[in-house]
Amino acid sequence: MRAIFHSELSHCSEIKIEGDAFAHLKVVRLREKEKLLLLDGLGGAAICHLREMSKRHAIVEVEDFKREEFSETFDLAIGLVKKDAMDLCLKMAVELGARRIFFIESKFSQRYEMNYERAERLLVQAIEQSNSLWMPKLMPLCSWSQLIENAINYEQVLVMGMTQSQEPTKLPQLSRSILGVIGPEGGFDTSEEEELVGLENAFGIHLPTPILRTPTALAALGGVIFTKL
Amino acid sequence: MRAIFHSELSHCSEIKIEGDAFAHLKVVRLREKEKLLLLDGLGGAAICHLREMSKRHAIVEVEDFKREEFSETFDLAIGLVKKDAMDLCLKMAVELGARRIFFIESKFSQRYEMNYERAERLLVQAIEQSNSLWMPKLMPLCSWSQLIENAINYEQVLVMGMTQSQEPTKLPQLSRSILGVIGPEGGFDTSEEEELVGLENAFGIHLPTPILRTPTALAALGGVIFTKL
Repeated sequence: MRAIFHSELSHCSEIKIEGDAFAHLKVVRLREKEKLLLLDGLGGAAICHLREMSKRHAIVEVEDFKREEFSETFDLAIGLVKKDAMDLCLKMAVELGARRIFFIESKFSQRYEMNYERAERLLVQAIEQSNSLWMPKLMPLCSWSQLIENAINYEQVLVMGMTQSQEPTKLPQLSRSILGVIGPEGGFDTSEEEELVGLENAFGIHLPTPILRTPTALAALGGVIFTKL
Repeated sequence: MRAIFHSELSHCSEIKIEGDAFAHLKVVRLREKEKLLLLDGLGGAAICHLREMSKRHAIVEVEDFKREEFSETFDLAIGLVKKDAMDLCLKMAVELGARRIFFIESKFSQRYEMNYERAERLLVQAIEQSNSLWMPKLMPLCSWSQLIENAINYEQVLVMGMTQSQEPTKLPQLSRSILGVIGPEGGFDTSEEEELVGLENAFGIHLPTPILRTPTALAALGGVIFTKL
Protein backbone atom coordinates (compact mmCIF):
# COMPACT_ATOMS: atom_id res chain seq x y z
CA MET A 1 0.00 0.00 0.00
CA ARG A 2 1.38 3.37 -0.99
CA ALA A 3 2.08 5.85 1.80
CA ILE A 4 1.65 9.60 1.45
CA PHE A 5 2.56 12.32 3.92
CA HIS A 6 -0.40 14.52 4.87
CA SER A 7 0.01 16.93 7.73
CA GLU A 8 -2.43 17.14 10.62
CA LEU A 9 -4.65 14.13 10.19
CA SER A 10 -7.63 13.78 12.48
CA HIS A 11 -10.66 11.56 12.90
CA CYS A 12 -12.99 12.20 9.96
CA SER A 13 -14.70 10.19 7.25
CA GLU A 14 -13.08 11.83 4.24
CA ILE A 15 -10.00 13.88 3.53
CA LYS A 16 -9.35 16.36 0.75
CA ILE A 17 -5.85 16.09 -0.64
CA GLU A 18 -4.29 19.14 -2.28
CA GLY A 19 -0.86 20.61 -2.91
CA ASP A 20 2.25 18.43 -2.83
CA ALA A 21 0.46 15.32 -1.62
CA PHE A 22 -2.01 15.66 -4.50
CA ALA A 23 0.82 16.11 -7.02
CA HIS A 24 2.35 12.95 -5.62
CA LEU A 25 -0.94 11.02 -6.05
CA LYS A 26 -1.10 12.15 -9.66
CA VAL A 27 2.46 11.02 -10.34
CA VAL A 28 1.79 7.55 -8.96
CA ARG A 29 -1.51 7.39 -10.91
CA LEU A 30 -3.57 6.14 -8.03
CA ARG A 31 -6.72 4.46 -9.34
CA GLU A 32 -10.22 4.71 -7.95
CA LYS A 33 -10.83 2.55 -4.87
CA GLU A 34 -7.10 1.91 -4.54
CA LYS A 35 -5.99 1.98 -0.94
CA LEU A 36 -3.40 4.31 0.45
CA LEU A 37 -1.88 5.16 3.80
CA LEU A 38 -1.77 8.76 4.97
CA LEU A 39 0.86 9.61 7.56
CA ASP A 40 1.17 12.93 9.37
CA GLY A 41 4.55 12.50 11.03
CA LEU A 42 2.93 13.11 14.42
CA GLY A 43 1.88 9.54 15.10
CA GLY A 44 -1.28 9.65 12.98
CA ALA A 45 -2.01 7.08 10.25
CA ALA A 46 -5.15 6.79 8.14
CA ILE A 47 -5.92 3.90 5.81
CA CYS A 48 -8.01 5.32 3.00
CA HIS A 49 -9.18 4.64 -0.53
CA LEU A 50 -9.50 7.03 -3.41
CA ARG A 51 -13.02 8.20 -4.14
CA GLU A 52 -12.62 11.15 -6.42
CA MET A 53 -9.84 12.72 -8.42
CA SER A 54 -10.33 16.19 -9.91
CA LYS A 55 -7.88 18.59 -11.51
CA ARG A 56 -6.78 20.24 -8.27
CA HIS A 57 -7.57 17.82 -5.51
CA ALA A 58 -8.50 14.29 -4.58
CA ILE A 59 -11.02 13.05 -2.06
CA VAL A 60 -10.18 9.91 -0.12
CA GLU A 61 -12.48 8.01 2.19
CA VAL A 62 -11.05 7.03 5.55
CA GLU A 63 -11.43 3.36 6.48
CA ASP A 64 -9.39 3.40 9.64
CA PHE A 65 -7.57 6.06 11.61
CA LYS A 66 -5.17 5.59 14.48
CA ARG A 67 -2.92 7.88 16.43
CA GLU A 68 0.07 6.52 18.32
CA GLU A 69 1.09 8.36 21.47
CA PHE A 70 4.46 10.05 21.37
CA SER A 71 7.17 7.95 22.97
CA GLU A 72 10.85 8.64 23.31
CA THR A 73 13.25 6.53 21.27
CA PHE A 74 16.51 8.39 20.81
CA ASP A 75 17.72 11.73 19.54
CA LEU A 76 20.67 12.27 17.25
CA ALA A 77 23.39 14.90 17.06
CA ILE A 78 25.22 14.73 13.74
CA GLY A 79 28.38 16.58 12.76
CA LEU A 80 27.78 18.64 9.62
CA VAL A 81 28.95 16.46 6.74
CA LYS A 82 28.85 16.99 3.00
CA LYS A 83 25.34 17.29 1.68
CA ASP A 84 24.99 13.87 0.04
CA ALA A 85 26.11 12.15 3.25
CA MET A 86 23.80 14.39 5.29
CA ASP A 87 20.86 13.50 3.02
CA LEU A 88 21.53 9.84 3.72
CA CYS A 89 21.78 10.52 7.47
CA LEU A 90 18.40 12.27 7.44
CA LYS A 91 16.69 9.39 5.65
CA MET A 92 18.26 6.84 7.98
CA ALA A 93 17.21 8.86 11.02
CA VAL A 94 13.58 8.54 9.87
CA GLU A 95 13.93 4.82 9.15
CA LEU A 96 15.39 4.21 12.59
CA GLY A 97 12.73 6.28 14.33
CA ALA A 98 14.86 9.09 15.81
CA ARG A 99 12.77 11.82 17.41
CA ARG A 100 14.99 14.92 17.17
CA ILE A 101 18.05 15.73 15.08
CA PHE A 102 20.65 18.25 16.14
CA PHE A 103 23.33 19.40 13.72
CA ILE A 104 26.76 20.04 15.17
CA GLU A 105 29.52 22.44 14.25
CA SER A 106 32.85 21.01 15.29
CA LYS A 107 36.49 21.36 14.28
CA PHE A 108 36.31 18.91 11.38
CA SER A 109 32.70 19.55 10.35
CA GLN A 110 31.70 21.17 7.08
CA ARG A 111 30.57 24.79 7.11
CA TYR A 112 27.31 25.54 5.37
CA GLU A 113 23.93 26.99 6.02
CA MET A 114 21.56 24.08 6.62
CA ASN A 115 18.59 24.28 4.26
CA TYR A 116 15.79 23.23 6.61
CA GLU A 117 13.06 23.31 3.96
CA ARG A 118 14.96 20.93 1.76
CA ALA A 119 15.78 18.73 4.74
CA GLU A 120 12.09 18.53 5.66
CA ARG A 121 11.22 17.47 2.12
CA LEU A 122 13.75 14.65 2.46
CA LEU A 123 12.20 13.61 5.76
CA VAL A 124 8.78 13.51 4.07
CA GLN A 125 10.14 11.26 1.32
CA ALA A 126 11.69 9.00 3.93
CA ILE A 127 8.40 8.82 5.87
CA GLU A 128 6.60 7.80 2.68
CA GLN A 129 9.21 5.15 1.94
CA SER A 130 9.58 3.74 5.45
CA ASN A 131 5.94 4.21 6.57
CA SER A 132 7.25 5.91 9.67
CA LEU A 133 4.67 7.48 11.96
CA TRP A 134 7.14 10.09 13.13
CA MET A 135 8.81 13.07 11.51
CA PRO A 136 12.01 13.82 13.42
CA LYS A 137 12.18 17.38 14.68
CA LEU A 138 15.04 19.27 13.06
CA MET A 139 16.78 21.39 15.68
CA PRO A 140 18.86 24.53 15.08
CA LEU A 141 22.58 24.20 14.36
CA CYS A 142 24.51 23.64 17.63
CA SER A 143 27.82 25.21 18.45
CA TRP A 144 30.12 22.98 20.46
CA SER A 145 29.09 24.51 23.81
CA GLN A 146 25.41 24.16 22.90
CA LEU A 147 25.95 20.48 22.11
CA ILE A 148 27.48 19.97 25.57
CA GLU A 149 24.61 21.86 27.22
CA ASN A 150 22.08 19.72 25.39
CA ALA A 151 23.92 16.49 26.07
CA ILE A 152 23.79 16.81 29.87
CA ASN A 153 19.98 16.69 29.74
CA TYR A 154 19.93 13.07 28.57
CA GLU A 155 20.27 10.01 30.76
CA GLN A 156 22.78 8.51 28.36
CA VAL A 157 24.92 10.00 25.63
CA LEU A 158 26.43 7.53 23.17
CA VAL A 159 29.30 8.88 21.14
CA MET A 160 30.31 6.87 18.09
CA GLY A 161 33.81 6.24 16.91
CA MET A 162 35.83 7.64 19.77
CA THR A 163 39.43 6.67 20.45
CA GLN A 164 38.92 6.69 24.21
CA SER A 165 36.08 4.28 24.15
CA GLN A 166 34.76 0.83 24.73
CA GLU A 167 33.35 -1.95 22.65
CA PRO A 168 29.54 -1.89 22.60
CA THR A 169 29.40 -5.27 24.35
CA LYS A 170 30.41 -3.42 27.52
CA LEU A 171 27.67 -0.80 27.40
CA PRO A 172 25.15 -0.80 30.25
CA GLN A 173 21.49 -1.33 29.54
CA LEU A 174 20.07 1.79 27.91
CA SER A 175 17.11 3.97 28.84
CA ARG A 176 14.78 5.81 26.48
CA SER A 177 16.53 9.11 27.09
CA ILE A 178 19.44 8.71 24.73
CA LEU A 179 21.40 11.18 22.64
CA GLY A 180 23.41 9.47 19.92
CA VAL A 181 26.34 11.62 18.78
CA ILE A 182 28.01 10.98 15.44
CA GLY A 183 30.99 13.04 14.38
CA PRO A 184 31.62 14.49 10.93
CA GLU A 185 33.96 12.74 8.48
CA GLY A 186 37.31 12.88 10.25
CA GLY A 187 35.60 12.52 13.63
CA PHE A 188 36.08 14.75 16.63
CA ASP A 189 39.43 16.18 17.55
CA THR A 190 41.18 15.11 20.76
CA SER A 191 40.01 18.01 22.93
CA GLU A 192 36.42 17.66 21.70
CA GLU A 193 36.59 13.95 22.35
CA GLU A 194 37.87 14.48 25.89
CA GLU A 195 35.13 16.94 26.68
CA LEU A 196 32.39 14.64 25.34
CA VAL A 197 33.60 11.44 26.96
CA GLY A 198 34.26 13.39 30.16
CA LEU A 199 30.52 14.00 30.62
CA GLU A 200 29.16 11.86 33.44
CA ASN A 201 26.38 10.42 31.29
CA ALA A 202 28.52 9.75 28.20
CA PHE A 203 29.82 6.49 26.74
CA GLY A 204 32.31 6.48 23.91
CA ILE A 205 31.65 3.58 21.57
CA HIS A 206 34.28 1.95 19.46
CA LEU A 207 33.28 -0.65 16.89
CA PRO A 208 36.13 -2.99 15.88
CA THR A 209 35.90 -1.85 12.26
CA PRO A 210 37.78 0.30 9.76
CA ILE A 211 36.74 3.96 9.57
CA LEU A 212 32.97 4.32 9.22
CA ARG A 213 31.49 7.11 7.18
CA THR A 214 28.95 9.18 9.11
CA PRO A 215 25.79 7.51 7.65
CA THR A 216 27.14 4.01 8.31
CA ALA A 217 28.07 5.02 11.86
CA LEU A 218 24.57 6.39 12.37
CA ALA A 219 22.79 3.21 11.27
CA ALA A 220 25.23 1.01 13.18
CA LEU A 221 24.55 3.10 16.28
CA GLY A 222 20.85 2.35 15.74
CA GLY A 223 21.68 -1.37 15.84
CA VAL A 224 23.70 -0.90 19.04
CA ILE A 225 20.90 1.04 20.74
CA PHE A 226 18.19 -1.50 19.90
CA THR A 227 20.39 -4.30 21.20
CA LYS A 228 21.00 -2.57 24.52
CA LEU A 229 17.52 -1.22 25.30
CA MET B 1 47.45 10.06 5.59
CA ARG B 2 46.05 9.13 2.20
CA ALA B 3 45.37 5.44 1.59
CA ILE B 4 45.83 3.73 -1.77
CA PHE B 5 44.92 0.20 -2.76
CA HIS B 6 47.87 -1.77 -4.11
CA SER B 7 47.46 -5.47 -4.65
CA GLU B 8 49.90 -8.03 -3.28
CA LEU B 9 52.10 -6.08 -0.95
CA SER B 10 55.07 -7.83 0.57
CA HIS B 11 58.11 -7.03 2.69
CA CYS B 12 60.43 -4.86 0.59
CA SER B 13 62.12 -1.50 0.87
CA GLU B 14 60.54 0.16 -2.14
CA ILE B 15 57.44 -0.31 -4.27
CA LYS B 16 56.79 0.73 -7.84
CA ILE B 17 53.30 2.05 -8.37
CA GLU B 18 51.75 1.81 -11.81
CA GLY B 19 48.33 1.57 -13.41
CA ASP B 20 45.21 2.65 -11.52
CA ALA B 21 47.00 3.28 -8.25
CA PHE B 22 49.48 5.54 -10.07
CA ALA B 23 46.65 7.43 -11.79
CA HIS B 24 45.10 7.93 -8.38
CA LEU B 25 48.38 9.32 -6.99
CA LYS B 26 48.55 11.79 -9.84
CA VAL B 27 45.00 12.95 -9.24
CA VAL B 28 45.65 13.64 -5.57
CA ARG B 29 48.96 15.36 -6.47
CA LEU B 30 51.02 13.59 -3.88
CA ARG B 31 54.16 15.58 -3.12
CA GLU B 32 57.66 14.29 -2.61
CA LYS B 33 58.26 12.81 0.87
CA GLU B 34 54.54 12.90 1.57
CA LYS B 35 53.41 9.80 3.43
CA LEU B 36 50.84 7.38 2.18
CA LEU B 37 49.33 4.12 3.26
CA LEU B 38 49.24 1.21 0.81
CA LEU B 39 46.59 -1.43 1.48
CA ASP B 40 46.29 -4.73 -0.37
CA GLY B 41 42.91 -5.91 0.88
CA LEU B 42 44.53 -9.11 2.16
CA GLY B 43 45.55 -7.79 5.55
CA GLY B 44 48.71 -6.05 4.35
CA ALA B 45 49.44 -2.37 5.07
CA ALA B 46 52.59 -0.43 4.18
CA ILE B 47 53.36 3.07 5.40
CA CYS B 48 55.46 4.71 2.70
CA HIS B 49 56.61 8.05 1.42
CA LEU B 50 56.94 9.20 -2.14
CA ARG B 51 60.47 9.21 -3.53
CA GLU B 52 60.09 9.56 -7.25
CA MET B 53 57.32 10.42 -9.64
CA SER B 54 57.79 9.84 -13.38
CA LYS B 55 55.35 9.89 -16.27
CA ARG B 56 54.26 6.29 -15.94
CA HIS B 57 55.04 5.22 -12.43
CA ALA B 58 55.97 6.33 -8.94
CA ILE B 59 58.47 4.85 -6.53
CA VAL B 60 57.63 4.90 -2.85
CA GLU B 61 59.91 3.95 0.00
CA VAL B 62 58.48 1.63 2.62
CA GLU B 63 58.85 2.79 6.23
CA ASP B 64 56.81 0.10 7.87
CA PHE B 65 55.00 -3.00 6.65
CA LYS B 66 52.57 -5.16 8.58
CA ARG B 67 50.34 -8.04 7.65
CA GLU B 68 47.36 -8.90 9.81
CA GLU B 69 46.34 -12.55 9.95
CA PHE B 70 42.97 -13.35 8.44
CA SER B 71 40.27 -13.57 11.09
CA GLU B 72 36.58 -14.24 10.65
CA THR B 73 34.20 -11.39 11.36
CA PHE B 74 30.95 -12.00 9.54
CA ASP B 75 29.74 -12.70 6.02
CA LEU B 76 26.79 -11.04 4.34
CA ALA B 77 24.07 -12.27 2.01
CA ILE B 78 22.24 -9.36 0.39
CA GLY B 79 19.08 -9.52 -1.70
CA LEU B 80 19.69 -7.95 -5.11
CA VAL B 81 18.52 -4.35 -4.78
CA LYS B 82 18.63 -1.46 -7.21
CA LYS B 83 22.14 -0.52 -8.17
CA ASP B 84 22.48 2.69 -6.15
CA ALA B 85 21.36 0.89 -2.99
CA MET B 86 23.68 -2.03 -3.80
CA ASP B 87 26.61 0.36 -4.25
CA LEU B 88 25.94 1.72 -0.79
CA CYS B 89 25.71 -1.82 0.62
CA LEU B 90 29.07 -2.73 -0.87
CA LYS B 91 30.78 0.32 0.62
CA MET B 92 29.21 -0.30 4.01
CA ALA B 93 30.27 -3.95 3.93
CA VAL B 94 33.89 -2.81 3.60
CA GLU B 95 33.54 -0.21 6.36
CA LEU B 96 32.06 -2.81 8.71
CA GLY B 97 34.72 -5.38 7.87
CA ALA B 98 32.60 -8.13 6.28
CA ARG B 99 34.69 -10.95 4.81
CA ARG B 100 32.47 -12.38 2.05
CA ILE B 101 29.42 -11.04 0.25
CA PHE B 102 26.80 -13.29 -1.32
CA PHE B 103 24.14 -11.84 -3.58
CA ILE B 104 20.70 -13.40 -3.35
CA GLU B 105 17.96 -13.88 -5.87
CA SER B 106 14.62 -14.01 -4.09
CA LYS B 107 10.99 -13.33 -4.95
CA PHE B 108 11.17 -9.58 -4.42
CA SER B 109 14.78 -9.07 -5.50
CA GLN B 110 15.79 -7.15 -8.59
CA ARG B 111 16.91 -9.08 -11.68
CA TYR B 112 20.16 -8.02 -13.22
CA GLU B 113 23.55 -9.34 -14.09
CA MET B 114 25.91 -8.29 -11.31
CA ASN B 115 28.87 -6.40 -12.73
CA TYR B 116 31.70 -7.83 -10.61
CA GLU B 117 34.41 -5.63 -12.08
CA ARG B 118 32.50 -2.50 -11.21
CA ALA B 119 31.69 -3.87 -7.76
CA GLU B 120 35.38 -4.53 -7.11
CA ARG B 121 36.25 -0.98 -8.10
CA LEU B 122 33.73 0.23 -5.53
CA LEU B 123 35.28 -2.01 -2.89
CA VAL B 124 38.69 -0.53 -3.70
CA GLN B 125 37.33 2.99 -3.25
CA ALA B 126 35.78 1.97 0.06
CA ILE B 127 39.06 0.43 1.22
CA GLU B 128 40.87 3.67 0.41
CA GLN B 129 38.25 5.71 2.25
CA SER B 130 37.89 3.49 5.31
CA ASN B 131 41.51 2.28 5.53
CA SER B 132 40.21 -1.26 5.73
CA LEU B 133 42.78 -4.03 5.61
CA TRP B 134 40.31 -6.41 4.02
CA MET B 135 38.67 -6.60 0.63
CA PRO B 136 35.46 -8.63 1.01
CA LYS B 137 35.29 -11.58 -1.36
CA LEU B 138 32.44 -11.21 -3.83
CA MET B 139 30.68 -14.56 -4.23
CA PRO B 140 28.62 -15.71 -7.20
CA LEU B 141 24.89 -14.93 -7.31
CA CYS B 142 22.95 -17.41 -5.11
CA SER B 143 19.65 -18.95 -6.01
CA TRP B 144 17.34 -19.46 -3.05
CA SER B 145 18.36 -23.08 -2.57
CA GLN B 146 22.04 -22.15 -2.75
CA LEU B 147 21.49 -19.53 -0.05
CA ILE B 148 19.97 -22.17 2.22
CA GLU B 149 22.82 -24.60 1.49
CA ASN B 150 25.38 -21.91 2.33
CA ALA B 151 23.53 -20.77 5.43
CA ILE B 152 23.67 -24.13 7.19
CA ASN B 153 27.47 -23.98 7.22
CA TYR B 154 27.51 -21.07 9.67
CA GLU B 155 27.17 -21.30 13.43
CA GLN B 156 24.67 -18.47 13.42
CA VAL B 157 22.53 -16.93 10.70
CA LEU B 158 21.03 -13.54 11.48
CA VAL B 159 18.16 -12.53 9.27
CA MET B 160 17.15 -8.89 9.36
CA GLY B 161 13.63 -7.52 9.30
CA MET B 162 11.62 -10.71 9.58
CA THR B 163 8.04 -10.76 10.79
CA GLN B 164 8.55 -13.98 12.75
CA SER B 165 11.38 -12.65 14.77
CA GLN B 166 12.69 -11.30 17.99
CA GLU B 167 14.11 -8.05 19.25
CA PRO B 168 17.91 -8.05 19.17
CA THR B 169 18.04 -7.75 22.96
CA LYS B 170 17.04 -11.42 23.07
CA LEU B 171 19.77 -12.71 20.80
CA PRO B 172 22.29 -15.12 22.30
CA GLN B 173 25.95 -14.24 22.38
CA LEU B 174 27.38 -14.51 18.88
CA SER B 175 30.32 -16.45 17.54
CA ARG B 176 32.66 -15.44 14.72
CA SER B 177 30.91 -17.71 12.25
CA ILE B 178 28.00 -15.49 11.33
CA LEU B 179 26.07 -15.02 8.12
CA GLY B 180 24.02 -11.81 8.13
CA VAL B 181 21.13 -11.99 5.69
CA ILE B 182 19.44 -8.83 4.48
CA GLY B 183 16.46 -9.01 2.17
CA PRO B 184 15.89 -6.87 -0.90
CA GLU B 185 13.52 -3.86 -0.72
CA GLY B 186 10.16 -5.43 0.11
CA GLY B 187 11.88 -8.09 2.22
CA PHE B 188 11.40 -11.83 1.90
CA ASP B 189 8.03 -13.35 1.18
CA THR B 190 6.27 -15.51 3.78
CA SER B 191 7.45 -18.87 2.48
CA GLU B 192 11.05 -17.66 2.12
CA GLU B 193 10.87 -16.25 5.61
CA GLU B 194 9.57 -19.53 7.04
CA GLU B 195 12.34 -21.51 5.39
CA LEU B 196 15.06 -19.16 6.61
CA VAL B 197 13.86 -18.83 10.19
CA GLY B 198 13.19 -22.58 10.22
CA LEU B 199 16.93 -23.29 9.96
CA GLU B 200 18.30 -24.53 13.27
CA ASN B 201 21.07 -21.96 13.35
CA ALA B 202 18.93 -18.98 12.28
CA PHE B 203 17.63 -16.02 14.25
CA GLY B 204 15.13 -13.60 12.76
CA ILE B 205 15.79 -10.09 13.99
CA HIS B 206 13.17 -7.44 14.25
CA LEU B 207 14.18 -3.89 15.10
CA PRO B 208 11.33 -1.79 16.54
CA THR B 209 11.55 0.68 13.67
CA PRO B 210 9.68 1.66 10.51
CA ILE B 211 10.72 -0.12 7.32
CA LEU B 212 14.50 -0.01 6.81
CA ARG B 213 15.97 0.22 3.36
CA THR B 214 18.53 -2.49 2.64
CA PRO B 215 21.69 -0.38 3.27
CA THR B 216 20.32 0.93 6.58
CA ALA B 217 19.40 -2.62 7.63
CA LEU B 218 22.90 -3.78 6.74
CA ALA B 219 24.68 -1.15 8.85
CA ALA B 220 22.23 -1.61 11.72
CA LEU B 221 22.92 -5.35 11.60
CA GLY B 222 26.62 -4.49 11.95
CA GLY B 223 25.76 -2.60 15.14
CA VAL B 224 23.76 -5.57 16.44
CA ILE B 225 26.55 -8.04 15.71
CA PHE B 226 29.27 -5.98 17.41
CA THR B 227 27.06 -5.59 20.48
CA LYS B 228 26.45 -9.33 20.75
CA LEU B 229 29.91 -10.70 20.04
